[in-house]
Amino acid sequence: MRWGEASKPTCAYWRTCRGDGVDQPLIVERDGRGVVRFTLNRPASFNALSEEMLAALQSALDAVAADEGARVVVLGAQGKAFSAGHHLKEMIAHPSLDYYQRLFAQCSRMMLAIQKLPVPVIARVQGLATAAGCQLVAQCDLAVASTDASFAVSGVNFGLFCSTPSVPLLRNVPAKQAMEMLVTGDFIDAGEAARRGLVNHAVPPAELDARIDQLVASILAKPRVALAMGKELFYRQREMGLEAAYQLAGQTMAANMMDGCALEGVTAFTQKRKPGWA
Amino acid sequence: MRWGEASKPTCAYWRTCRGDGVDQPLIVERDGRGVVRFTLNRPASFNALSEEMLAALQSALDAVAADEGARVVVLGAQGKAFSAGHHLKEMIAHPSLDYYQRLFAQCSRMMLAIQKLPVPVIARVQGLATAAGCQLVAQCDLAVASTDASFAVSGVNFGLFCSTPSVPLLRNVPAKQAMEMLVTGDFIDAGEAARRGLVNHAVPPAELDARIDQLVASILAKPRVALAMGKELFYRQREMGLEAAYQLAGQTMAANMMDGCALEGVTAFTQKRKPGWA
Amino acid sequence: MRWGEASKPTCAYWRTCRGDGVDQPLIVERDGRGVVRFTLNRPASFNALSEEMLAALQSALDAVAADEGARVVVLGAQGKAFSAGHHLKEMIAHPSLDYYQRLFAQCSRMMLAIQKLPVPVIARVQGLATAAGCQLVAQCDLAVASTDASFAVSGVNFGLFCSTPSVPLLRNVPAKQAMEMLVTGDFIDAGEAARRGLVNHAVPPAELDARIDQLVASILAKPRVALAMGKELFYRQREMGLEAAYQLAGQTMAANMMDGCALEGVTAFTQKRKPGWA
Repeated sequence: MRWGEASKPTCAYWRTCRGDGVDQPLIVERDGRGVVRFTLNRPASFNALSEEMLAALQSALDAVAADEGARVVVLGAQGKAFSAGHHLKEMIAHPSLDYYQRLFAQCSRMMLAIQKLPVPVIARVQGLATAAGCQLVAQCDLAVASTDASFAVSGVNFGLFCSTPSVPLLRNVPAKQAMEMLVTGDFIDAGEAARRGLVNHAVPPAELDARIDQLVASILAKPRVALAMGKELFYRQREMGLEAAYQLAGQTMAANMMDGCALEGVTAFTQKRKPGWA
Repeated sequence: MRWGEASKPTCAYWRTCRGDGVDQPLIVERDGRGVVRFTLNRPASFNALSEEMLAALQSALDAVAADEGARVVVLGAQGKAFSAGHHLKEMIAHPSLDYYQRLFAQCSRMMLAIQKLPVPVIARVQGLATAAGCQLVAQCDLAVASTDASFAVSGVNFGLFCSTPSVPLLRNVPAKQAMEMLVTGDFIDAGEAARRGLVNHAVPPAELDARIDQLVASILAKPRVALAMGKELFYRQREMGLEAAYQLAGQTMAANMMDGCALEGVTAFTQKRKPGWA
Repeated sequence: MRWGEASKPTCAYWRTCRGDGVDQPLIVERDGRGVVRFTLNRPASFNALSEEMLAALQSALDAVAADEGARVVVLGAQGKAFSAGHHLKEMIAHPSLDYYQRLFAQCSRMMLAIQKLPVPVIARVQGLATAAGCQLVAQCDLAVASTDASFAVSGVNFGLFCSTPSVPLLRNVPAKQAMEMLVTGDFIDAGEAARRGLVNHAVPPAELDARIDQLVASILAKPRVALAMGKELFYRQREMGLEAAYQLAGQTMAANMMDGCALEGVTAFTQKRKPGWA
């Protein structure tokens, strides 16, 4: 099965498109509703973002971007850690500026691909998320954490300030709180992460999937095109002054309104009935 | 009575300047202190922002901008809803890109006029504020909500992502919380709106006017020119880098200090007496 | 002793480099670890930011910038107030636009020097911080307040809107909360300041120094170069779009990784031992 056939249901999507899937760094499953589940699958190395893992994430994100039936991505992980960030042994094995520049460029491209994806990406954070693992949570559109999770941008503890993680962190968390995390490397728990805006919700482990499913169901009930236009606009307008932001947002809404789903949806709403697409 | 004579007290400002006012979409009252109260007056349609309502708001904002005696605007509403956003029946009656572009441009111009107004604008939110109604709250300088109020950017429920509301929402509320509201369309209550920064305070309905009056009294006790210079600078510097922001802010403060009110105010403060203008 | 010899311990740094220090507006002490303590020393005038005080702060910040052994600055104050902002008597003695432009430029340059400093600056707020005193807290990288402290941007009370304080305030505190403080001039307590993001922590007075020392110890345990690169990147990337921010951040991390401290730190971490520099 291929991404192009993505509207058909499947339980082991990745297996079919990338081999057996048993020992893949990233398990990708897609159901018939377009819910794509990424599972970081290197629990023994705390799901480190090795070159292999980054490539697998990039490939999977590219596939979702091309899959017009995909509706939402849930990004979770196997094991006790969500992700401990970059793969340090791999890094010290290549002590050259050129290698590090390529590595961080590869990682940043993957992070940007999350923001550019036309569907919402929800982080499912079941455990520790540190350094680039914390960045991955911050970069997702939404995040739900188990109360077992904890968060740190801890590279500074071994002399490597979490500069790339600071990019999405500062766009989620108040400046002084972000700076404190970055210079101390200290952990915060899931409740504190929710209060600071790093995740949307902190829930008991047993409720994690239910809370994620609630978000997924809500997203599935909306037209894909409206979410795609809105997500793109959301991040683009953030980088603009207010006047330019309103101009682009107004054009986006006008285009959105001309889409069949919105015309039908608004009409149905005024007639107190469900839209045809719902 | 005209806006040019605005320093004189009046109880039914709008009536005199726009006709009888009885069935106006927007009631505008201005008292002798320069307190201008806008009341959205289409409770039967949940104070939808129809073309008529947008035009009335624009006209009233333009009048306040030209009224040198105006000191503060309190923007409230009649009925159970504050505002349910755009007028959907009107929208589906004009299914053309050109119409929607003009409509959203008209709405954005009105929203920008709130920010450009030389006096503070306080939203008085007594009930439901959804879609562009929630945007209106977010765009005001200050907002106080009754605990009866609730907030949603719910256009996505009928396939129309709240792109223009996302502009001021993201400038008030942490990114992931804003995104969750936009993709789910879910309601938050007034307390949550206060915690997220969408409104300044959430108070019991019986205390809503007292809390607004407290803000109004505080604003009236300040020189108009200082607030006008400060408000303009506040929003302009937000769009700048830190160095440019400081440069403009320093020039603004120097100009403010040369104003008679500030010179007298600072002098009075150092002499432990009230300023002449207080 | 001079800043150039800064790696040696000293208890009365300022005394040696600027005279006896007994009646200096700013006491500067530096210990052998590179912890530099600035103490605003004009308690009788509530540590107003007079021209003399601004010059002393600028001079001290310039000295720290040139001191490669400096590791962290703790900015505190003598007396009941942290700082009441500009020196109003001095201001009204020079009622000219030119004077005010120079004064606010001088102040802004000092504030920018805090951000540009290669070491973290922690505000130790033991009492009232108003107007430019509140700005000073907002401009620091980190801040810990005693529950005796209170905060206001109160210039508007005497007709001078706190325009320059609004610059760092709005980069720390949600927009509507910042605007309310600016137009009302009202005080908030330390707990509220922590909830709004203006300070990192609010603690009982007896615990203030212990909490600061904890941050200091954490910073001292990190390599200076990593903090310097990270702090500069943090503020630069904030002014960029996401894509440019990631590009610069990635280059910064690659350069950081090539530094001996990081290579040793990461290697030590993978070998489960302490880095040589720790």
